[in-house]
Amino acid sequence: MGKKLTKREEDYSKWYNELVVKADLAESSGVRGCMVIKPYGYAIWEKMQAQLDKMFKETGHENAYFPLFIPKSYLSKEASHVEGFAKECAVVTHYRLKNAEDGSGIIVDPDAKLEEELIVRPTSETIIWDTYRRWIQSYRDLPLLVNQWANVVRWEMRTRLFLRTAEFLWQEGHTAHATEKEAIAEAEQMMHVYAEFAEEYMGVPVIKGTKTASERFAGAVETYCIEALMQDGKALQAGTSHFLGQNFAKAFDVKFANKEGKQEHVWATSWGVSTRLMGALIMTHSDDNGLVLPPKLAPIQVVIVPIYRGEDQLDAISERVAPLVKELRSKGISVKYDNRDTHKPGFKFNEYELKGVPVRLAIGQRDMENGTYEVARRDTFEKETVAADGIVGKIEFLLEDIQKNIHKKALEHRENHITEVNSYEEFKEVLENKGGFLSAHWDGTPETEERIKEETKATIRCIPIDAEEEEGSCMVSGKPSLKRVLFAKAY
Amino acid sequence: MGKKLTKREEDYSKWYNELVVKADLAESSGVRGCMVIKPYGYAIWEKMQAQLDKMFKETGHENAYFPLFIPKSYLSKEASHVEGFAKECAVVTHYRLKNAEDGSGIIVDPDAKLEEELIVRPTSETIIWDTYRRWIQSYRDLPLLVNQWANVVRWEMRTRLFLRTAEFLWQEGHTAHATEKEAIAEAEQMMHVYAEFAEEYMGVPVIKGTKTASERFAGAVETYCIEALMQDGKALQAGTSHFLGQNFAKAFDVKFANKEGKQEHVWATSWGVSTRLMGALIMTHSDDNGLVLPPKLAPIQVVIVPIYRGEDQLDAISERVAPLVKELRSKGISVKYDNRDTHKPGFKFNEYELKGVPVRLAIGQRDMENGTYEVARRDTFEKETVAADGIVGKIEFLLEDIQKNIHKKALEHRENHITEVNSYEEFKEVLENKGGFLSAHWDGTPETEERIKEETKATIRCIPIDAEEEEGSCMVSGKPSLKRVLFAKAY
Ligand SMILES: [Zn+2]
Ligand SMILES: [Zn+2]
Repeated sequence: MGKKLTKREEDYSKWYNELVVKADLAESSGVRGCMVIKPYGYAIWEKMQAQLDKMFKETGHENAYFPLFIPKSYLSKEASHVEGFAKECAVVTHYRLKNAEDGSGIIVDPDAKLEEELIVRPTSETIIWDTYRRWIQSYRDLPLLVNQWANVVRWEMRTRLFLRTAEFLWQEGHTAHATEKEAIAEAEQMMHVYAEFAEEYMGVPVIKGTKTASERFAGAVETYCIEALMQDGKALQAGTSHFLGQNFAKAFDVKFANKEGKQEHVWATSWGVSTRLMGALIMTHSDDNGLVLPPKLAPIQVVIVPIYRGEDQLDAISERVAPLVKELRSKGISVKYDNRDTHKPGFKFNEYELKGVPVRLAIGQRDMENGTYEVARRDTFEKETVAADGIVGKIEFLLEDIQKNIHKKALEHRENHITEVNSYEEFKEVLENKGGFLSAHWDGTPETEERIKEETKATIRCIPIDAEEEEGSCMVSGKPSLKRVLFAKAY
Repeated sequence: MGKKLTKREEDYSKWYNELVVKADLAESSGVRGCMVIKPYGYAIWEKMQAQLDKMFKETGHENAYFPLFIPKSYLSKEASHVEGFAKECAVVTHYRLKNAEDGSGIIVDPDAKLEEELIVRPTSETIIWDTYRRWIQSYRDLPLLVNQWANVVRWEMRTRLFLRTAEFLWQEGHTAHATEKEAIAEAEQMMHVYAEFAEEYMGVPVIKGTKTASERFAGAVETYCIEALMQDGKALQAGTSHFLGQNFAKAFDVKFANKEGKQEHVWATSWGVSTRLMGALIMTHSDDNGLVLPPKLAPIQVVIVPIYRGEDQLDAISERVAPLVKELRSKGISVKYDNRDTHKPGFKFNEYELKGVPVRLAIGQRDMENGTYEVARRDTFEKETVAADGIVGKIEFLLEDIQKNIHKKALEHRENHITEVNSYEEFKEVLENKGGFLSAHWDGTPETEERIKEETKATIRCIPIDAEEEEGSCMVSGKPSLKRVLFAKAY
């Protein structure tokens, strides 16, 4: 496993990069900006996917699959959309390789040039709305509630595992509605679904809000978001849901006959979360010893480590452990009995700590004699000895308690890091020394927003949906403001 | 729903193309050769995925995710591999678009040319073995049993929905082993897993075998396959599993220290099935009225259609049906109660027939009075009236019986279409007039295989693993042969 993790205090960013690799979550590949998601990391993503997919289906959505490639002309049809994505896209120009005539190796065949270049999807609004034109004729075809699980590519110059990679995995919902009101309700609903997932499953507290015009998705009328706060005081956008108005319906000429037989343009939403959530999960809970995982998303919820000398002792322990493993599995608890004889118990303890397994059981000779287990919880490191006949109940309690406890801890940290500030001086001072969210009055203009961003690197993370009306004046321009917005430096 | 399906007798190929579109499974997109998988089609694929994923995990595999892009130099490292894939690949050459200076629109930015072109993966052996070099040092790291669910691209010139598309969805397993024997056992195991899935879940009988050298995967030492027979007498390769020897380990320099501390090259397998299975499923069971789906993969297993006049009658029926729906769902049976008032029962009957829903219940006024349901099964069109108190048991019976029956029917068809032939004349005659698999002696040379292919379009589908030893002579060259192989025209 190599040497210890860098401490968070020392270098938070280095700690994160090391942890992702050492805990076997992901690593860089030989392809610039593209990561390999390793089996342990992918197992967490699979658990996220399964739960999100369930929530999408419960809210009436179906999955489908659309092409990876988008013809250049499609991308260009919605003006602000192409503006937002053209600068960072992978372009397919040829469809064949061949042997170079001079014997120098394999080259792109110049005779196999595409008439129209294809863009590897950075997001699928354009190809999907081109399809929806064929699917939607009448109000009876609406609402159309579709989700896609897919890979997308955005050619980022500076990449970090999970947080910003050229290729990433995500889901993108794309819905079509007969009315503006219904589309807005859908966009809001999905923000709430994302928030519920973040809070209940990831244990990550989030603030729901809307983005300012300059932070909106390219092509959206309104962008709803959930914003989380990392341990280092930086914010992370964990999910977005967009009300797209009729922009894509107009660009792709998607109309429906309403009940009166009149043709109208369709109203749209899109919404997505990605493997970026892995970054949020890691940075919210983990510590200097490694990952801390919420039990609901942990691939291994319980690990059992035998402590023994010689095969006879191991056999006796294995016999004692077998019915416990079986009972836990029958309750849907994922458990691993690590009887590898190639590694010592101490090594195993460190490994499972690093990998964030919520509950660890150890059983040695004294436990065998006394009919007990040593039980350790990952979040607080508390250990206790528990009688075998109470062990299943103890484990069930711990899995629930750890889930609650890490959420509570993250929430406390978040609450301690929302600071109301009333002057630009105070703003800069708090931003510099404490970090976190800064709740401040802003005059609503992109000019002021841009100035603050240039001068401090803080952006408006969101206008919270539950922001109270409060008369004030913009900390920079002094102009009137009716509510506070949340600023932060962000990932 | 438009007009009726073309009949299979008239034009099998046209029947297939129409059925895929009319049953809402998939359609062509605006991107050449790429399909859109519609929600109903995707729901079947999801059921396939879930079952396969379970079987992979039960055999010890974990999922991971590797980059979409493969640097050109990686693809070139294994000589026969690049030979097999270079002619049909999508090549990314640039990473940015920009506004043309002459105002003519969006163009590829010539300044954003990649130093090395990236290939959109046609399969992932090369990028994965480049990664495995970092993951494998010692015998303790083996076996490495990894699967990936992903999209891949092969630039096919002639495409057909599900059967041959430029982009398709698949899974690809990539395993690494310490010994040749273990790798061969893995490749064989996965062929058996695929066969079990095809037979037990898809209801598609398959023949297990190995490919001849000329039909092998590019880079494989041995290719195992499962071959199915479609209703029109053409074969379809439904899954392949490759023993790759040390070819990729050598190309990417992947070695491990064995127990004695000596460095050895790793042994490899890869294996995959794709959305092509959807084509096999459709063409094996469906009829002139539409899809016939095996209950184990049907998104809707039971549909209930109310027959009524006026809202009062509908309300009464809905009240009767509600507890049945609940009971069926509690048993894990997926059921749809179609109370849409925008469509007549006759329309609904046709729609669910077209979509292959295995069991249809209808309930009208007479049924309300008598306490009965009319039950129809999709495979045989048999209808009967069943008392409400026996309906759940009847449905459970039917779902099992339909699963068995469609497999039996397909197996009988397959058995009736394996013909032993003993001369090249007979071969051509049977191929022309009856089709199906032709079991014949072949001298084992690629020259004879190639001649038969050129003259008749039939290929050797496989050398069946259970082929009996039988002395004979090649039907073409007269040279000695020790067993029969299976020929067919194929998709
Ligand atoms: Zn803090
Ligand atoms: Zn036939």
